[in-house]
Amino acid sequence: MDVISVIRTKRDRGELTPEHIDWVIDAYTRGEVAHEQMSSLAMAIFLNGMTRKEIARWTAAMIASGDRMDFSSLTRPTADKHSTGGVGDKITLPLAPLVAACGAAVPQLSGRGLGHTGGTLDKLEAIPGWRANLTNAEMLGVLDSVGSVICAAGDGLAPADKKLYALRDVTGTVESIPLIASSIMSKKIAEGTGSLVLDVKVGSGAFMKNITDARELASTMVGLGTDHGVRTTALLTDMATPLGRTAGNALEVRESVEVLAGGGPADVVELTLALAREMLDAAGLPDADPAKALADGTAMDHWRRMIRAQGGDPDAPLPTARETHVVPAPQTGVLTTLDAYAVGLAAWRLGAGRARKEDPVQAGAGIELHAKPGDAVVAGQPLLTLHTDTPDTFDYALKGLDSAYGIAPAGTEFTRGPIVLDRIA
Amino acid sequence: MDVISVIRTKRDRGELTPEHIDWVIDAYTRGEVAHEQMSSLAMAIFLNGMTRKEIARWTAAMIASGDRMDFSSLTRPTADKHSTGGVGDKITLPLAPLVAACGAAVPQLSGRGLGHTGGTLDKLEAIPGWRANLTNAEMLGVLDSVGSVICAAGDGLAPADKKLYALRDVTGTVESIPLIASSIMSKKIAEGTGSLVLDVKVGSGAFMKNITDARELASTMVGLGTDHGVRTTALLTDMATPLGRTAGNALEVRESVEVLAGGGPADVVELTLALAREMLDAAGLPDADPAKALADGTAMDHWRRMIRAQGGDPDAPLPTARETHVVPAPQTGVLTTLDAYAVGLAAWRLGAGRARKEDPVQAGAGIELHAKPGDAVVAGQPLLTLHTDTPDTFDYALKGLDSAYGIAPAGTEFTRGPIVLDRIA
Repeated sequence: MDVISVIRTKRDRGELTPEHIDWVIDAYTRGEVAHEQMSSLAMAIFLNGMTRKEIARWTAAMIASGDRMDFSSLTRPTADKHSTGGVGDKITLPLAPLVAACGAAVPQLSGRGLGHTGGTLDKLEAIPGWRANLTNAEMLGVLDSVGSVICAAGDGLAPADKKLYALRDVTGTVESIPLIASSIMSKKIAEGTGSLVLDVKVGSGAFMKNITDARELASTMVGLGTDHGVRTTALLTDMATPLGRTAGNALEVRESVEVLAGGGPADVVELTLALAREMLDAAGLPDADPAKALADGTAMDHWRRMIRAQGGDPDAPLPTARETHVVPAPQTGVLTTLDAYAVGLAAWRLGAGRARKEDPVQAGAGIELHAKPGDAVVAGQPLLTLHTDTPDTFDYALKGLDSAYGIAPAGTEFTRGPIVLDRIA
Repeated sequence: MDVISVIRTKRDRGELTPEHIDWVIDAYTRGEVAHEQMSSLAMAIFLNGMTRKEIARWTAAMIASGDRMDFSSLTRPTADKHSTGGVGDKITLPLAPLVAACGAAVPQLSGRGLGHTGGTLDKLEAIPGWRANLTNAEMLGVLDSVGSVICAAGDGLAPADKKLYALRDVTGTVESIPLIASSIMSKKIAEGTGSLVLDVKVGSGAFMKNITDARELASTMVGLGTDHGVRTTALLTDMATPLGRTAGNALEVRESVEVLAGGGPADVVELTLALAREMLDAAGLPDADPAKALADGTAMDHWRRMIRAQGGDPDAPLPTARETHVVPAPQTGVLTTLDAYAVGLAAWRLGAGRARKEDPVQAGAGIELHAKPGDAVVAGQPLLTLHTDTPDTFDYALKGLDSAYGIAPAGTEFTRGPIVLDRIA
């Protein structure tokens, strides 16, 4: 077996054999296949695609490249969620303790943000003292005592994916359905969860810009999970506009705590409950009542215990940015659009995200949205507030926001679209 | 400018701007763009192509990445030849001294073999004492005193191409018309020749398997040369069967000396003279008579002086392989096919070529062809002789030769096709 034959096969629109795939993933993990060889293969896959059979084998080979975790010692059924990434998507924060409060065990191995989408670990690190890196034993301990844990994946889990993910990020090969599906599912299957709910985002702020691609991605991932014995369902959810009223690390933690306290923006509550119900169904707990657990404070209790178990102080004040800048509504009327990608990009420019993996993020940076599509706005009243520790980024951030929103004359009919667009099981 | 935007533009079938191209070639040469980024771009170019405008700019940017040579001190017009590579293609060896004998200066900067096609420098290194690496001053000295020189290109010439060529070789991105054309022409234009004849090979032993692709490659290169003030023509020549009766380093030197002595295989003589006439025409010497220079020994005189000027002994015995193995004709009849690729691959397996740039080659290894398509063969008489210092390679080499030839019943009509298939100016 040699790498040039593998590359040529895919380049010339052929189907990779199981032997091709097993060999190339293993050889890349060991360093025998070089980065520049894997990146030309990744571009060939990007442009020529992979069959379902190839994707399944590719995923299995990435799982086999590392360790698999084992949650069989837990008494509760495991349920996990994965979002393909969006703007203002803080759902994991309230969702994990909520589902734990309803009786499932939630092992949420999460990532950091790159580009315009935020990362769950970056958000939680805004909480003083909280740490993302746990040993396997610590992770199982938190999971067993609290019922949910949100932490970084260990190095042993799908190391092939870890290498390939970092490579794709710098070689223009990110937005490929076979590569996204195999990346997500190899990690989730290796992690060993019994059930999994996928939140596949659709719209300007997501990798999948249209519902056809999103459906294809979702059904590919559901198929992969099911084939590996993980009860997997997917919700296709709207990412044309940001989720909730904040994008940024500490800002999103604050909003998540509001949701856990029984308040918070309607869309965040709606999606949190929808995903919680899917997870509880998949975990074999269809009678659990997540709305009650939000309302009666048990979800909040679980949140506080989970944060404390990882060194965080749930009562400590959250960091705030040193400077703010208000964008007023230029006219009176009805907000009709507020573009997720533009808001995500602006938050990133303000310092909430990173350009390279090794960059730090600002805990306080981000954007507050004072109105959402469908809301009335009044000329001169605040529409957006920008937060940053580095006020020289305001101009750059504002440039991307110029055409991010639309306002129609007051009285214009406006119907909010649904958040959950489809369900794939 | 950032490399991801450049990659995405080509990946999404857009046209690269002059700024994209100038930046990415310069940044890659400096090491700011990493190998893995250039290789995903190369695969995107491979699969999505480049316009003539993009190819022209890409070529210009690679020329600008290094030095340009200057032959204006020479009193004779310069003429150069480049072959896209084939099996048994030793034409440069007799051609360079022949054209020099007819009054032109021939600065032949050549390469080494990689894969199934041989390299001119590897062949000449079979001559005891001969060295490929000359300083610029030495090269100009040989050119001035002998009229022809065959040597390795200096490091300063199109360094971007040098890096990209090595990268393409290991990333499955070789057989791309835009990348081949810009690679060849950037070196040849930077080298500073006044005229250039391209020998574009077509057939199983060539990169271009069909005449349509070969014509496209030839006309792209002729256009690039002409735009840079180099009088450029191209011959499309047959590479379905090996040139001459040998493939291998010392074996091909021996055959070249036969041609210079006025003998040698008819196809090698025919192509050498056709290319010599093209070069002399392009150099403004249409009245020169290369057939006479071959016949009267002046080409041989030039050969001997050229070899001596680079440390070689033209009278020293050439190395021979330690072991030979004869493949007899399995039946009596007419040889109808002898596949160039299969012969090239077998010669490579015997040790005549290299798998990696740093591998050594065997001077004596290769294959002798005792018959060419159209010749009568007799059952049990030698058809091929395999030469190697490593007899454990015989089995591997023979495997590739199993289906390399066809024999029709004696008396079957057979017409040899032409060697020169087309001319593009």
